[in-house]
Amino acid sequence: MRGIFEAELRQIGDDLTAMARLVESAIKDAGTALLEADLELAQSVVEKDGEIDALERDLDERCVLLLAQQAPVATDLRVVVSALRISSALERMGDLARHIAQVARGRYPRPAVAGDVAATFAQMNAAAVHVAERVTQLLETRDLTLAHKIERDDDQLDTLHQDTFAALLGGGWEGTPQETVDVTLLGRYYERFGDHGEAIARRMLFLVTGVFETES
Amino acid sequence: MRGIFEAELRQIGDDLTAMARLVESAIKDAGTALLEADLELAQSVVEKDGEIDALERDLDERCVLLLAQQAPVATDLRVVVSALRISSALERMGDLARHIAQVARGRYPRPAVAGDVAATFAQMNAAAVHVAERVTQLLETRDLTLAHKIERDDDQLDTLHQDTFAALLGGGWEGTPQETVDVTLLGRYYERFGDHGEAIARRMLFLVTGVFETES
Repeated sequence: MRGIFEAELRQIGDDLTAMARLVESAIKDAGTALLEADLELAQSVVEKDGEIDALERDLDERCVLLLAQQAPVATDLRVVVSALRISSALERMGDLARHIAQVARGRYPRPAVAGDVAATFAQMNAAAVHVAERVTQLLETRDLTLAHKIERDDDQLDTLHQDTFAALLGGGWEGTPQETVDVTLLGRYYERFGDHGEAIARRMLFLVTGVFETES
Repeated sequence: MRGIFEAELRQIGDDLTAMARLVESAIKDAGTALLEADLELAQSVVEKDGEIDALERDLDERCVLLLAQQAPVATDLRVVVSALRISSALERMGDLARHIAQVARGRYPRPAVAGDVAATFAQMNAAAVHVAERVTQLLETRDLTLAHKIERDDDQLDTLHQDTFAALLGGGWEGTPQETVDVTLLGRYYERFGDHGEAIARRMLFLVTGVFETES
């Protein structure tokens, strides 16, 4: 029984990593689509989000089956319940990358963000890509220094999010209402992307150390 | 063992209902705070969100303990896993009510929304309150006609959300960037509030009928 259980658990881990890799591609491509007004890339992010959703459903079913058939306890149980949480966070990260791509697609051939604010979004996207890359590595290696790096990436995203508000509300903003709406929503999407990454980081810290750090 | 299990399951159900009631109050009060620029009420929504978060943590621990000690299968297992999902959705609904209250608080003594768009937000809040009330009743009674009503409330929220964009982008909008940002974010918060309510409705449909309707 133990052998089967461990194989199943490994499979769940592999699926989470596969989801994280898809999220990584999605946010990279969504950022390029946004910053370079690349319609084809935007479209492909939107289309591929279904793969992430399908992986989440499979993974959930597998977790529930594992709970039913193996009735894990202690750490094993914690791993399975955490997998349910992490897959749900990854699924949302995929949705947020899709939302970013949809904004890029909606404004094509015009870029959705321009001028100073485009530079801020370039930084936000770099930070979000870092989050996604580190989430993948964290799931693969359980190296907790990565969890702390993700927390710092998330802090950086929060600061950049504040910068977008400063740009909009500082008095020098001359964008159209559409541009104001886009900057507001895109900022929110990136900020939430970071939050979900951070939630995964905290859950992995909990899994490995047994201590759950609540949101500050 | 079965007696203990059923008592625990009842307790989990009671906790979910308690969370849903708190979410109901939070969204009602957040809406009043927003539409009537009521600072005290806004502040109380922000403060009380911690209660919802605490209930979620308790409920999660209780679910994991139940999985470990009772190793439920079939429907019982589905109920416990669904409770984990539903508590997480309710927690987010509480956060969103808090975000709405925070916007109201940030603009005080000015109302955050004014004119025609205030009427749209009054309708959005009424629909969101319906969602919350029906979620509470659905959790209490498992009456699936409520689940279908929640889906319609959510559709209404989506339509009203589009109305806010139409107001912002229709050409007649003369709001400041701050007002544009507020309408954009508030619209998003209400829309997400509805989405989470709908996710709970779909999960309850699945629990009771065994058929999971994927998001359309």
